[in-house]
Amino acid sequence: MSKIFVVGIGPGEYEQMTIRAVNALQSCDVIVGYTVYVDLVKEHFAEKEFLTTPMRREVERCRMAFEEAKKGRSVAMICSGDAGVYGMAGLMLEIGQEYPDIPVEVIPGVTAALGGGAVLGAPLIHDFCLISLSDLLTPWEKIEKRLLAAAEADFVVCLYNPSSKKRHDYLEKACDLMMRYKSPETVCGIVSNIGREGETGRVMSLKELRDTRVDMFTTVFVGNSQTTAIDGKMVTPRGYRKGN
Amino acid sequence: MSKIFVVGIGPGEYEQMTIRAVNALQSCDVIVGYTVYVDLVKEHFAEKEFLTTPMRREVERCRMAFEEAKKGRSVAMICSGDAGVYGMAGLMLEIGQEYPDIPVEVIPGVTAALGGGAVLGAPLIHDFCLISLSDLLTPWEKIEKRLLAAAEADFVVCLYNPSSKKRHDYLEKACDLMMRYKSPETVCGIVSNIGREGETGRVMSLKELRDTRVDMFTTVFVGNSQTTAIDGKMVTPRGYRKGN
Repeated sequence: MSKIFVVGIGPGEYEQMTIRAVNALQSCDVIVGYTVYVDLVKEHFAEKEFLTTPMRREVERCRMAFEEAKKGRSVAMICSGDAGVYGMAGLMLEIGQEYPDIPVEVIPGVTAALGGGAVLGAPLIHDFCLISLSDLLTPWEKIEKRLLAAAEADFVVCLYNPSSKKRHDYLEKACDLMMRYKSPETVCGIVSNIGREGETGRVMSLKELRDTRVDMFTTVFVGNSQTTAIDGKMVTPRGYRKGN
Repeated sequence: MSKIFVVGIGPGEYEQMTIRAVNALQSCDVIVGYTVYVDLVKEHFAEKEFLTTPMRREVERCRMAFEEAKKGRSVAMICSGDAGVYGMAGLMLEIGQEYPDIPVEVIPGVTAALGGGAVLGAPLIHDFCLISLSDLLTPWEKIEKRLLAAAEADFVVCLYNPSSKKRHDYLEKACDLMMRYKSPETVCGIVSNIGREGETGRVMSLKELRDTRVDMFTTVFVGNSQTTAIDGKMVTPRGYRKGN
């Protein structure tokens, strides 16, 4: 029996991995992951064995990792961003109950909210909410309730999975809901391909965001009432009273 | 004139820094930061010059960085965790308006929510809010409103700055507010000294959390209605319907 690491590899480029994540991948015998993430790290760990499963085969991927560990091999299960933010850490710990002798260690990484935030400037400086617009595993009513609550309480909001082929109008719907409480002039931003080729960020108003088409590789940021645009950057101040 | 990096160094230990952060610190002439953070990295960058200011002298610290850059030196301003989550990235971009010729690059890092989440297991797998309980720069009424909104919409909630000498009852107050909507049996967790000596995590119910004394080096996690405890770990499932 051996150990399993569940590793957040960050946004994509090797330099955005933590040293701890690199060490885990270097120390293990086999790296398991979704095909796209494996392709991101493959060249840096060329001597390792890789096992992949396609998207939405997460349970199968987890079992694959535990079965490898059962053979006495040390395993790294990789996730993009952070392993614990819409990542595989939870499912690994759930399925791990069937393999009580195999220890699971979670290694955190830079999630898209942080990676994309740095590209835009400093959108998340104060209290924020992270909401996924994917209704694959969450009823839309629940997502709607969260968007309204976050907007009413003046949180900065970061949206994951803002769009897909089937859900091309979800961002528009989300913006309309938030505009019940947030001004249409609220400073917003989008970042595409964070830490990958073609990385681009753009700052705009909430009403412009509503009419912007984004893809599944985009992370969306909606400011609070204090967020400003400074030289094309999105900046949220630290607080509501004047600091020193 | 030279460049300034605003660098998130992660929770504390060197291994939790990203390669990009290490490269920035290695490439710069001078490292600027709050005394405590400088002490965390000093031994790994012994040949560098360090400039420090005490806590709450943030504006002074920023100007110090820009004045060094004006002399033609390349500067890294370091923050614990991520530079953009209650960090210095925002203030640096604000003050940067007075130094329009000096480019500022933000380098993200592992914030306490991610670092602490990995210690507890997988508390943040689904939508979550990050709320600071410090009312130094934010009116308490605003914090209260956010706690209630987050609880009512069934977010996982991660609390930063849950306590200090002057605010020893703030966590108790926050738990009481959230218990208006969240069950007292909600699975919660606390992590102290993330990525530092004495790192410890503990899982408990919301009503136990209410009566737990924590210090300023603790990060607090409050689950959503689906969060469970698995073998002493805090695990939030990916969604609300059964996955594959």
